[in-house]
Amino acid sequence: MRTFKLFLAIAMLVSSVSTMAAYKIDRLEPAFWWAGMENENLQILVYGEGISELRPSIDYPGVSLEQTVQVKSPNYLFLYLKVDKSAKAGSFDILFKRNNKTMVKYNYELKQRVAGSASRQGYDNSDVMYLITPDRFVNGDTSNDEVEGLKEGLDRADDFGRHGGDLAGIMQSLDYIEDMGYTTLWLNPVMENDMPEGSYHGYAITDFYETDARHGSNEDYVQLSKELKKRNMKLVIDMIMNHCGSHHWWMEDLPTDDWLNFQDGWQVTTHLRETNMDPYASEYDKRNHADGWFVESMPDLNQRNPLMADYLIYNTIWWIEYADLDGIRMDTYPYPDKAFMSEWTRRVMEEYPNFNIVGEEWSSNPAIVSYWQKDKINADGYVSYMPGVFDFPLQDALVKALNEDDSQWGQGLPKLYATLADDHLYADPTQLVIFPDNHDMSRFYTQINEDFGMFKMGMAFTAVCRGIPQIYYGTEILMTNPNSDSHGEIRAEYPGGWDDHTANAFTGEGLTADQKEAQTFTKILLNWRKGCSAVHDGCLKHFAPNHANGLYTLFRYDDKSVVMLVMNKNSEANDVNILPFKVEVIGAATEGVDVITGNNVSLAGETVKVEGRSFLLVEIKK
Amino acid sequence: MRTFKLFLAIAMLVSSVSTMAAYKIDRLEPAFWWAGMENENLQILVYGEGISELRPSIDYPGVSLEQTVQVKSPNYLFLYLKVDKSAKAGSFDILFKRNNKTMVKYNYELKQRVAGSASRQGYDNSDVMYLITPDRFVNGDTSNDEVEGLKEGLDRADDFGRHGGDLAGIMQSLDYIEDMGYTTLWLNPVMENDMPEGSYHGYAITDFYETDARHGSNEDYVQLSKELKKRNMKLVIDMIMNHCGSHHWWMEDLPTDDWLNFQDGWQVTTHLRETNMDPYASEYDKRNHADGWFVESMPDLNQRNPLMADYLIYNTIWWIEYADLDGIRMDTYPYPDKAFMSEWTRRVMEEYPNFNIVGEEWSSNPAIVSYWQKDKINADGYVSYMPGVFDFPLQDALVKALNEDDSQWGQGLPKLYATLADDHLYADPTQLVIFPDNHDMSRFYTQINEDFGMFKMGMAFTAVCRGIPQIYYGTEILMTNPNSDSHGEIRAEYPGGWDDHTANAFTGEGLTADQKEAQTFTKILLNWRKGCSAVHDGCLKHFAPNHANGLYTLFRYDDKSVVMLVMNKNSEANDVNILPFKVEVIGAATEGVDVITGNNVSLAGETVKVEGRSFLLVEIKK
Repeated sequence: MRTFKLFLAIAMLVSSVSTMAAYKIDRLEPAFWWAGMENENLQILVYGEGISELRPSIDYPGVSLEQTVQVKSPNYLFLYLKVDKSAKAGSFDILFKRNNKTMVKYNYELKQRVAGSASRQGYDNSDVMYLITPDRFVNGDTSNDEVEGLKEGLDRADDFGRHGGDLAGIMQSLDYIEDMGYTTLWLNPVMENDMPEGSYHGYAITDFYETDARHGSNEDYVQLSKELKKRNMKLVIDMIMNHCGSHHWWMEDLPTDDWLNFQDGWQVTTHLRETNMDPYASEYDKRNHADGWFVESMPDLNQRNPLMADYLIYNTIWWIEYADLDGIRMDTYPYPDKAFMSEWTRRVMEEYPNFNIVGEEWSSNPAIVSYWQKDKINADGYVSYMPGVFDFPLQDALVKALNEDDSQWGQGLPKLYATLADDHLYADPTQLVIFPDNHDMSRFYTQINEDFGMFKMGMAFTAVCRGIPQIYYGTEILMTNPNSDSHGEIRAEYPGGWDDHTANAFTGEGLTADQKEAQTFTKILLNWRKGCSAVHDGCLKHFAPNHANGLYTLFRYDDKSVVMLVMNKNSEANDVNILPFKVEVIGAATEGVDVITGNNVSLAGETVKVEGRSFLLVEIKK
Repeated sequence: MRTFKLFLAIAMLVSSVSTMAAYKIDRLEPAFWWAGMENENLQILVYGEGISELRPSIDYPGVSLEQTVQVKSPNYLFLYLKVDKSAKAGSFDILFKRNNKTMVKYNYELKQRVAGSASRQGYDNSDVMYLITPDRFVNGDTSNDEVEGLKEGLDRADDFGRHGGDLAGIMQSLDYIEDMGYTTLWLNPVMENDMPEGSYHGYAITDFYETDARHGSNEDYVQLSKELKKRNMKLVIDMIMNHCGSHHWWMEDLPTDDWLNFQDGWQVTTHLRETNMDPYASEYDKRNHADGWFVESMPDLNQRNPLMADYLIYNTIWWIEYADLDGIRMDTYPYPDKAFMSEWTRRVMEEYPNFNIVGEEWSSNPAIVSYWQKDKINADGYVSYMPGVFDFPLQDALVKALNEDDSQWGQGLPKLYATLADDHLYADPTQLVIFPDNHDMSRFYTQINEDFGMFKMGMAFTAVCRGIPQIYYGTEILMTNPNSDSHGEIRAEYPGGWDDHTANAFTGEGLTADQKEAQTFTKILLNWRKGCSAVHDGCLKHFAPNHANGLYTLFRYDDKSVVMLVMNKNSEANDVNILPFKVEVIGAATEGVDVITGNNVSLAGETVKVEGRSFLLVEIKK
């Protein structure tokens, strides 16, 4: 017995000595933080071989280490700090000790927040969001097309390969983007996707704290944010709480047995978003939806594990503060644990009360989409803090409105009317993000069968309808996906973004006449929209399509102006009766201005003429 | 001046004397009332030439005449009585006086209410409603096929003509109806429709207080109610507040200038039910929907006129009390003035708190249908008191579920699943009335392309789903409308209801084998349903169709039994995995009973076999 104890003591000593030199911190996330945050708590993930054998300590005024959590893998520690509001910006060492000896340390910085950080104003109804797939917009820096240590290189011949677009390219295009009238950028995720293939889209994140080097660096991302601020423009980050990429660094050494859902053997999600609100849903269906994986290459994160939940929340706040962001586009909103998503949003909005977030719930059913919005009173008591959601029902209805004939109720313009009428389901329909298309669906021009008149009508509707418009890069120049609806083809290179392109959307060179007209049309529309408060925050009133007459009129109005959009789906011009409009909206005004042509439009008579397969967009100043 | 006054006095005297003999009361409605009603007020409409020249009075303990309203037409008086709860049953004269002389009088009776009238229990979830078009079910009394003084006679060759069906025919069929398992009768309106043509359907009422003599008398209607009560069955009246028939007696002499909507010149309704909840609806659209007429032969009543509103409300209460009714089916619920409909329902339910009413809102959009149900929290603050609504969305989904293939989300069984998942929109989905078809749409068997397997599946679903099933007469024997979806053809004569029929659904004679099987199947199903509390008021849980696998399982369960309905749309039999069901619903039970065959079904294994294009309906007793 005595012999044994002695042996053990020697063994421990040997072990201690032998590993002392070996302790190192591979990752410590977030790498720094800020003084003066609203939420005084902070989780820090520490990763390094055997790190859990050490005992961390901190000595800094106002900062205390409240808790240190060891997990199943010995190579993690989760530190919970309290950073009192009184704590000053500065830095301190986190000491990792063993037997009271510091084995390794990390100098942790509490940065100074930028002025007004907490009260930052998110994107709002005066904005138009330009959605860019960074790999496919502009290759501004060919030196980062392939990066040492990242698995996938350049392959422009492959729709699903990397094409080299980057942050540098976007920064070089800001004059163009601003001139077009876009005020806000939403980029598909720029965080590292170090996957062996198909990594261009950004939705298989392998490092939640690092910009993918093929797009640029974290510093480049911050630089883009600064450049936008100078132009009074805004930046929206694309985030994913639901999953990571299967080559995420932690996949080789998961902290716990429940870090992922279906950790022992993945199964695909059923995509049954209905289970979130269905009063009759089985637990079986709920689990298979929420815990199922999108694909095998995207492990489903278990946000019911509080360590994971905190990790994701602090990561989000870090990015907002670090890159001075104006909003978040949240991917696959109904797929993560819904209680977590509520808490995530609450925590973000608590930190930044004027911020904005939009969640992706891809359903054409507004009863489902509206469930997720802040202030919605849900039958099951679910409370959301999400300011906005994407208006997929309206996107679906818009395309049907433009494609289908109007002779039957429930299709064509009547469908669009009925969909807006459903707005009573939303707690706040003004905060919906509306869009003709996005990166996950066929190009708008393809969806509407390349009908140029309908394109203009759809864009005009998007510019004046309630909500915050979002336009996908290339939609303004009629980009199509004629061969397939594969994501790779939809997310084609923007003309002029690569040196070998023959067409150039920035200069107009090589564009067709229709493309140029579409671009000019969009530019006029969006620049007009910038200054028209009625379209931002005004009331909406519409006059329903009469049965099969192919006409539909929508007004926006405030104390400064009345905006009238009359859509005419008929092939012939129509003298539209404006008497009911005068009674309720236009009043005594006898003249307005055609927003597109700038011509005066007389409203003195009983009708206005609207060309066939076209629209009239008139602003009447008060 | 003096001369003039004298002349006037003589003229008045002459006038008075000459009309004294002529005063008569053509109508006084309601003709009698009851002592001890919850609402102590009562409106009485009095109609007679020049009646407004008289001053009515009443002298009866507990009854006071509070107000007498004269209107534009001199031939009306609207009396407002207060009938104190202390007033005893009995009768009294209403004296109509001029210069203090009684010119005409009316003996008004306050009847004794039947015991328990106020607390009458409406139809409920244990019931199955049988919907009958009285003109087309059974001609039990050929002597009333044509009635002196009523415009339209018999024309069985015309789908839109009168065929002679009547209350006598229904009364003669009660054994059959009861045996089949129906517990409640809903008859299309039986009130007088003295229209020159197309009057068979009952929806163009020309006298709100009189049963159409071609169906029978008011006494016959009361007799039917009594016969049903003896059998512990229930009677639901079909009412219309929106319009009357253009040959309604008052159309020749409208009381006021605003008795009807668009009284000066009718226009057709836009049917834009969306205007009721649309936050952006124009007043123009709201009016054209609510005030527009269904057709020229159905003048749209203006319920914003409080005299009209009261007239309709007291008429309703009169029928409930008079005919001892168990429920109301309210026609065209979103078309009358919506504030009135709320008040109408509130007043009816105040008088009979346990009563039941179902409103017709024919929309496949549950966001619209759910708006009208009691306790729904609506965005616009609209408060409804309507206990139930017809589940048109589910009817639409059921037909699609049975017709469409299941390979795409949003159609086939997944559509049915998703529609039930939308139940979170309803304040109380258990109070929806569900139905495979009704009198206004193609026959169920026609809608499902005469697929016998799908017929059974649809009927089984209807029998076990939440809500109160309603079956249209003839659906149980596979009646179809192969030539057209005209109402006349849909509402064909029930086989055996006329002497010259070669087939007879009451005896089975001349029915096809499929018809007999369908009838027996329905009978087994509904009679089983009568005694199965899990299906009445039990919980519902469903297991979603997996992508394109053609299977969908729904459970109802309470503390007495578990009911499992597994639907298999595939052409092949399927061994359905029941392990998830065991975990959440079935528990340790190893055996159940097939509801249709009565055979035992083993649940001991991991699967149960369900035949192709069929279903398994098992009850597991606890």
